[in-house]
Amino acid sequence: MTPEEFRRHGHAVVDWIADYMRRVEDLPVLSRVVPGAIRAQLPEHPPADGEPFETILADVDRIILPGITHWQSPNFFAYFPANSSGPAILGELLAAGLGVQGMLWATSPSCTELETHVLDWLVEMLGLPGGFRSGTVGGGVIQDTASSAVLCALIAARERAVRGGATGRLTAYASSQAHSSVEKAIRIAGMGRESLRLIDVDHAYAMRADRLADVMAADRAAGHVPVFVCATVGTTSSLAVDPVAAIGPVCRTHGAWLHVDAAMAGTAALCPEFRFLHDGLEWADSYCFNPHKWMFTNFDCSAFWVADRAALIDALSILPEYLRNRATATGAVIDYRDWHVQLGRRFRALKLWFVIRSFGVRGLQERIRAHVALAQELARWIGEHPDFELAAPATLNLVCFRHRGGDERNQDIMDRVNDSGHLFLTHTKLDGKLTLRLAVGQTGTERRHVEAAWEEIRESGTRGQGPGTRRSPSKGG
Amino acid sequence: MTPEEFRRHGHAVVDWIADYMRRVEDLPVLSRVVPGAIRAQLPEHPPADGEPFETILADVDRIILPGITHWQSPNFFAYFPANSSGPAILGELLAAGLGVQGMLWATSPSCTELETHVLDWLVEMLGLPGGFRSGTVGGGVIQDTASSAVLCALIAARERAVRGGATGRLTAYASSQAHSSVEKAIRIAGMGRESLRLIDVDHAYAMRADRLADVMAADRAAGHVPVFVCATVGTTSSLAVDPVAAIGPVCRTHGAWLHVDAAMAGTAALCPEFRFLHDGLEWADSYCFNPHKWMFTNFDCSAFWVADRAALIDALSILPEYLRNRATATGAVIDYRDWHVQLGRRFRALKLWFVIRSFGVRGLQERIRAHVALAQELARWIGEHPDFELAAPATLNLVCFRHRGGDERNQDIMDRVNDSGHLFLTHTKLDGKLTLRLAVGQTGTERRHVEAAWEEIRESGTRGQGPGTRRSPSKGG
Repeated sequence: MTPEEFRRHGHAVVDWIADYMRRVEDLPVLSRVVPGAIRAQLPEHPPADGEPFETILADVDRIILPGITHWQSPNFFAYFPANSSGPAILGELLAAGLGVQGMLWATSPSCTELETHVLDWLVEMLGLPGGFRSGTVGGGVIQDTASSAVLCALIAARERAVRGGATGRLTAYASSQAHSSVEKAIRIAGMGRESLRLIDVDHAYAMRADRLADVMAADRAAGHVPVFVCATVGTTSSLAVDPVAAIGPVCRTHGAWLHVDAAMAGTAALCPEFRFLHDGLEWADSYCFNPHKWMFTNFDCSAFWVADRAALIDALSILPEYLRNRATATGAVIDYRDWHVQLGRRFRALKLWFVIRSFGVRGLQERIRAHVALAQELARWIGEHPDFELAAPATLNLVCFRHRGGDERNQDIMDRVNDSGHLFLTHTKLDGKLTLRLAVGQTGTERRHVEAAWEEIRESGTRGQGPGTRRSPSKGG
Repeated sequence: MTPEEFRRHGHAVVDWIADYMRRVEDLPVLSRVVPGAIRAQLPEHPPADGEPFETILADVDRIILPGITHWQSPNFFAYFPANSSGPAILGELLAAGLGVQGMLWATSPSCTELETHVLDWLVEMLGLPGGFRSGTVGGGVIQDTASSAVLCALIAARERAVRGGATGRLTAYASSQAHSSVEKAIRIAGMGRESLRLIDVDHAYAMRADRLADVMAADRAAGHVPVFVCATVGTTSSLAVDPVAAIGPVCRTHGAWLHVDAAMAGTAALCPEFRFLHDGLEWADSYCFNPHKWMFTNFDCSAFWVADRAALIDALSILPEYLRNRATATGAVIDYRDWHVQLGRRFRALKLWFVIRSFGVRGLQERIRAHVALAQELARWIGEHPDFELAAPATLNLVCFRHRGGDERNQDIMDRVNDSGHLFLTHTKLDGKLTLRLAVGQTGTERRHVEAAWEEIRESGTRGQGPGTRRSPSKGG
């Protein structure tokens, strides 16, 4: 593909996406294909000769699109959002076009310096502790996901303890509501599942700091070494906020590393009125939130800070001869390869820079406030309806609720609304009961989408159980 | 940014990249900025209000571009290539526009099924063992990097051994020339640096299988448990090829997992005449190569296969309630979240599909053959020059060489040519001597670029040592 051909086909792909942004609202949110349906349309063997780009793009519509669950639909309320925006997509495009590696400062200084700078901006924008700034002994880095961030935090904690002469079983702590990535990190780190203690939660599903203190003390008494605590600010199930301000001193007593995972909810701290989320964050050794969830920056982009960058770098740095260079030797630069699992890294700061500059801080705040207001309004409607109940405090932009008719009824409601194609929501279990989750966070979600979702849910709740009349989506299909 | 604004600005970014493709050849390859120079031009605080996209794009030229080391320049010969192409960039763009998550089959069936399908295509294209196909008990997945792939292989090996009742120190093996990611994986996995044995290499810097057998046997005799061997097909320093066919039986004897890392060189196997690289691969438990290095697919895209997918999934799978769904429950689908560290994943198969279809198998083969031929030609020129010598067998597309004048002379040559802006190459140490490395693998590299590079190197070699007359690049700057 010559540069001129790239120009022509590139315009076509941009047009395709612009059109998609308009029509995505009318597509069934959850893909309806059956397993194997996509592969059945793909040729068994790769093509011997090149094909025209027009043919390939036509196949995207014909083969790929029916197998897409539309995460960018304003009617997507499932899981947590992984939203996006025009500036983010164009930042990703430009990063792909430049095609640079940011593993060392020298391999593209802009890639490193823009990242450091934008992460300092975010410290200011979210009101994070000053000790996370690059001018201190701390600093920030973009990870791919919060799973990788918690793994790196755990490794840094473990290495710090081992180098400090710790002997005995190393133990780690998280609430029973913590994300599965904590257990996965423990397993990858080779600490053994039995090293992870899941701490009880209170009525709001937040970690009980008193229980944490008890368990850590008991472990210490048994000769174990508590090295790592993961507090969650906005759990995946119900957006519960662990009391970091109470957890911090407990960690300090035992010399344990405190990681705070605010993957989805952290973005809310852009608004001063939601900064209560970060109470006690000055106790944290590391902190992570994902601009790729709720901050209009396409996946992947997880912002991760440490209070002591030496602990992270000591744990992950290995310098082979072929990576030595003058800039690294001076010690005056950051080589981000030492801050994560991977060696190679792309220029992800570009999209973050595009987003922050395009929206401006006020623009971001307005959209976050609007999402929270919509979720709060929905929580009121649910709370006022005789057949439904809230299953957890509706913090911020997630509403956990259920029909009073029991698990089967709720499963039926979920299946019906998801099969309708009009919206997509997912579930969790709280107190052993099936609970519906509706997260408001897609870039295009407006009041009318939440209203329509609630109407659909309410209607499904009033119908009898069993196979419903599957309606086709309002438009398109 | 509305869809119509996105269309307009998107066309501008596409045009920017098309123009960049043309002019990148004339830009100094290695960035010349000093540490801090980029940040000094960025405002201290984030903007309160949004800025026009035109302003941001202008700043890319003004602030970012001087700090770019141009990996896509045809004059980039450093490290290993991380090449790209028009179809790959457009695949990345489309993936960003769709913005889907592929963590579960259900979260976008096309994302999973296209990935499985394209990785099956690659098994055929590279002549890999049939046991890596998805229709068997094996299968493939896209990882971000070869570092993550070797980590996942190691974790699977470790968990398989532990679940099998292994007691004693678990030991791992790689040649002394293996990539630093092996040591990093060992550290992350918590196995301790002392668990990694670096095996001696032969005159061609390839692992000695006899030494491996000796060391493994000694470890076994000492009560240790050999669990993991990483063989490298194309080492980073000199593209040495470990003898997998001889290593395989040794691994089998001890029940150790054999991972084969062909990150850069694997692409050459697209051409039947280079498939000797994969001799013995039927012994491998896992294999990895990076289309994002030499196969015209922009970073990140590392293709990873396992012969027994259950071993990988058992090691990494954790299924919380909020991820349960009907498709997963049937067991009829692949959920790729269980195949790597991360939970979230973007639609990376799209760019791989675009590349394979746009180039066609023959188109890919032609370009790889051309790169290898250019490197072989350069190796001949170097071998015939009285002042230079080859430092290792010039396998495929990497030439390791040095001036006969010693380390300082070679450092001086490297600094001069890199400072010239006309090309960028890097070094390694072989037999304790500073060695220059020139890798041919950028998409746009033609004979004239290699000729000009050799002329520049030769000229720098004939000049006296000390600060050279720094020439400005031929055009632009």
